[in-house]
Amino acid sequence: MAYIDLGLDEHEYPGITGLLAYRPETAKPFRDLLNILLRGPHSMPAGERELIAAYVSGLNECVFCCTSHSSFAAAQLDEGMPLIEQVLADLDSAPVSPKLRALLRIAGAVQQSGRTVTEELVAAARTEGATDLEIHDTVLIAAAFCLANRYVDGLGTIPGDETHYVETTKRIVESGYSGRRAPASA
Amino acid sequence: MAYIDLGLDEHEYPGITGLLAYRPETAKPFRDLLNILLRGPHSMPAGERELIAAYVSGLNECVFCCTSHSSFAAAQLDEGMPLIEQVLADLDSAPVSPKLRALLRIAGAVQQSGRTVTEELVAAARTEGATDLEIHDTVLIAAAFCLANRYVDGLGTIPGDETHYVETTKRIVESGYSGRRAPASA
Repeated sequence: MAYIDLGLDEHEYPGITGLLAYRPETAKPFRDLLNILLRGPHSMPAGERELIAAYVSGLNECVFCCTSHSSFAAAQLDEGMPLIEQVLADLDSAPVSPKLRALLRIAGAVQQSGRTVTEELVAAARTEGATDLEIHDTVLIAAAFCLANRYVDGLGTIPGDETHYVETTKRIVESGYSGRRAPASA
Repeated sequence: MAYIDLGLDEHEYPGITGLLAYRPETAKPFRDLLNILLRGPHSMPAGERELIAAYVSGLNECVFCCTSHSSFAAAQLDEGMPLIEQVLADLDSAPVSPKLRALLRIAGAVQQSGRTVTEELVAAARTEGATDLEIHDTVLIAAAFCLANRYVDGLGTIPGDETHYVETTKRIVESGYSGRRAPASA
């Protein structure tokens, strides 16, 4: 149970979904930010951007966000869930491109602290072909999930069940983050 | 110097300001989120909400954000900068209300990890009169500055000079976060 009364059935609205329904004023800009970062037109495939979100959420041990974004990433990458699981288990040996690995290393540094990111990590990503915008967005995606993970766990929300993740994956992949979910009673 | 080419004079646009100018698509929703959390109609004074932002930024050792939001907090609280400095130096002995101290303790837990927030910390804030919305917004402000601090330091931006903080404080207190800063050339 969440630490505050969200005024809804948390099993219908697990994790961040209950928080977004509770405070729609702050939900809107946060959804818009995620939609630009994870779904907007980009040189990086949406699945790779979702993988950054899942990776950071895994490092933060946020079950709801890691399960959700692993599922969103798997649905948008040809390699599917096995690749996500390999990245979460051991980035160094996971079969991702050198560029994506270098960007995930930057994301992992951001998860610890902004001050952990070094010129060397950034130079390594650039050597593998990452552009300034890709480096910028990697840092901002990682930072945004340091927000989301703390929001979800800091208010003690519950993780979802299997059905929740399946339904949400379908909706996010089809429609992105900006659309508001229909009320559970609909 | 920032780790990426922001295409502007960083001394004119230090800290997050250069990043917001570099990527206006993501800047808009982030500014809107801050404006609702820190400037919107609220049961907590804007100065107290800015103090939460400054406190978390101090814990994250983000010089730009901590200096900025300490200045914004001081400008909006009768006790001014001495109070901010006492909170940053030692929350337990700082002369803030029991409610604000309990909310700052929640914010300090969020800074470490969402999983560090406990039912006991939340119950203590409620005992001192904090509402569910105040608890929610404290967690979200703290989480949002875990984003901002990582964004600012993860891309290696430079802190501002004294003039920058004075001018920004005047602008934020007068107009909030949603308005875009006029170009430096104007």
